[in-house]
Amino acid sequence: MTAPAATATAGEVISRYLTEQAGNFLRALPQAVGEAGARPGALPSLNSPAGSGGTLELLRAVRRVGGALHTFGAVFEPGWAHESRAELRWLLNLLAQEPAYQRRSARLLAAVDSLSGVAPAGEGGPGMLAGHQGAPKARALLDRQLTLARTRAHSTVLQELRSARLHALADRMTLLVGEAPLVEPAWGKAGEVLPSQAAAAFAALGAAVQALPLRRAATAYQGDALHRLGGAEPSGPAVVPPQGRTGDADSALAADDAPWHRVRILLKRTRYALEVCGRPGDQLVELDRVLDCHQEAADAAVTAATAARTPRITPATAYVLGVVHADQRLEVEAARFAFGSRWPELPLSLDGWEGPPGQRMG
Amino acid sequence: MTAPAATATAGEVISRYLTEQAGNFLRALPQAVGEAGARPGALPSLNSPAGSGGTLELLRAVRRVGGALHTFGAVFEPGWAHESRAELRWLLNLLAQEPAYQRRSARLLAAVDSLSGVAPAGEGGPGMLAGHQGAPKARALLDRQLTLARTRAHSTVLQELRSARLHALADRMTLLVGEAPLVEPAWGKAGEVLPSQAAAAFAALGAAVQALPLRRAATAYQGDALHRLGGAEPSGPAVVPPQGRTGDADSALAADDAPWHRVRILLKRTRYALEVCGRPGDQLVELDRVLDCHQEAADAAVTAATAARTPRITPATAYVLGVVHADQRLEVEAARFAFGSRWPELPLSLDGWEGPPGQRMG
Repeated sequence: MTAPAATATAGEVISRYLTEQAGNFLRALPQAVGEAGARPGALPSLNSPAGSGGTLELLRAVRRVGGALHTFGAVFEPGWAHESRAELRWLLNLLAQEPAYQRRSARLLAAVDSLSGVAPAGEGGPGMLAGHQGAPKARALLDRQLTLARTRAHSTVLQELRSARLHALADRMTLLVGEAPLVEPAWGKAGEVLPSQAAAAFAALGAAVQALPLRRAATAYQGDALHRLGGAEPSGPAVVPPQGRTGDADSALAADDAPWHRVRILLKRTRYALEVCGRPGDQLVELDRVLDCHQEAADAAVTAATAARTPRITPATAYVLGVVHADQRLEVEAARFAFGSRWPELPLSLDGWEGPPGQRMG
Repeated sequence: MTAPAATATAGEVISRYLTEQAGNFLRALPQAVGEAGARPGALPSLNSPAGSGGTLELLRAVRRVGGALHTFGAVFEPGWAHESRAELRWLLNLLAQEPAYQRRSARLLAAVDSLSGVAPAGEGGPGMLAGHQGAPKARALLDRQLTLARTRAHSTVLQELRSARLHALADRMTLLVGEAPLVEPAWGKAGEVLPSQAAAAFAALGAAVQALPLRRAATAYQGDALHRLGGAEPSGPAVVPPQGRTGDADSALAADDAPWHRVRILLKRTRYALEVCGRPGDQLVELDRVLDCHQEAADAAVTAATAARTPRITPATAYVLGVVHADQRLEVEAARFAFGSRWPELPLSLDGWEGPPGQRMG
């Protein structure tokens, strides 16, 4: 996308963006349905990448349309925008699970392999668990549990992809192609209406980042992920404990991670808002990737801890799962360090639109 | 100590240093014997700091005399110096064990407490193992095994502190007070003889550091301690596996740690050589501390791994020990990072004695 022409209205700019994304949605949908149901009745092939092609394209479009409807909500018919966002969130949660389980499986099995020195690592030699008798069992346990979770997620997708709810959502997307239901502020100049709304998204992101323990995260090896949890985020959002049986430890970690996960969502919204406005967001893309890693490592750590509570496993297996858990929490800490190192380089303002670029907020 | 006067001979300077250290040795020895045998026949109080006072002073003197005899070996009668160093090494190994077990116990129990959130941490909240059922059991297991090891080390010290071998070593130290058996190069000017020998110690240290994977260690979160082991040190010294049952993993870690442990020894020698020459070595003191931490964390990780192989422990206990193992290996990695960050700031040369200070080697 290019920057909006000076004469364009806000409605024209946002409609052009939504038309493009809704088109992507409608092209990707049948492809995703085909992928999911390619072998009806059979289990999905667990070796082929879940959501390659169609599903990932669909997720991309869903995130962008939802983000635009949220950030630029003032230019849309409110009831319609609200409903649309709810339905998009439903589809997002539905579709994201299977690829997430697949990435988590790849991440955890690679960690076990690397720690036990069986991975075809380039320069590395044997890892911390080289020759450890528990490693193959822990690997098999993780593989089994994540395959089961992925299979269940796939079945749910298969069911819902044929539902009336999805058809209704597809109809909504069809309407978006050229005909988004706009209201008053949409008739204003794009350069006046949109930046202020994108700036609000940016401000929300900035405020959430300010509340993070960034100074600590920006110093390496502060033990954030392993030792210093909880106390620093007294006003964090309510914590939804991860699925499965949970202990105090899981809750403490979830509470510690929650503000970071929230920043990830706000950062995606800001990133898409910049896309709507035709502004470059390369730095946000990179930070988005870092926070995706943060989330995936945090989820993987929970999976390792949950697997360690499987009845009748051997102590050797449990020991390896403990190492893997700590390893993934270390990845969480590394992601925070990477975020903390890069964030201050961002020009935290949209002033660039109306003044000199590069100015920093706070 | 102050820098040697321009007119002093090498023998005078080194004798003054050895007289001081041998005096420390002879004052600390009866105190250490008294501490060890305060309650003959009874077990030592395991709550009082082992080697507080006497033993630690004795260790300080033993390390310094041994270091001086090694680095400035050319000015001593060779047979005498060789024998003295062997006897000092014996006493060092004998005395260092009990305080080492005590520090390791403190380190590991603090790690379990911190990870399980029961430590009275200032700003931190609950850690990664908060409420985990295995934490108290793992703590008790580590406490029991390290107490046993410390008690054994104490008994050995008690025996040897009354041995003829120790009395003979004390006689050697008495001889050192004012009467070190010097040979020819000792009559040369201190400013000409000593720096070249200290420089050789510095060069040995520099060469050993060059062989470390320093560039990797200087970047945070490279997974050195957990993942990338072995391959990088093809020419490292032969590895003595840690005590107890060992697996491939322990061997791989020991091989990875060995070059760092070697640098620690060379750094201590260099540090004491600077003391002899009356030169400031504050930066080396700090790096020495970092490498002590490196060694202690590496040893603690082995203890956690060994404890996890105790028969009939529960999976929950083993899981916690796995987390603790990874945590200590993370401390190893953090120490390498700290070393890699500070080392390049050192003026790696003794040219300061004969030219402009601050010049850097290689």
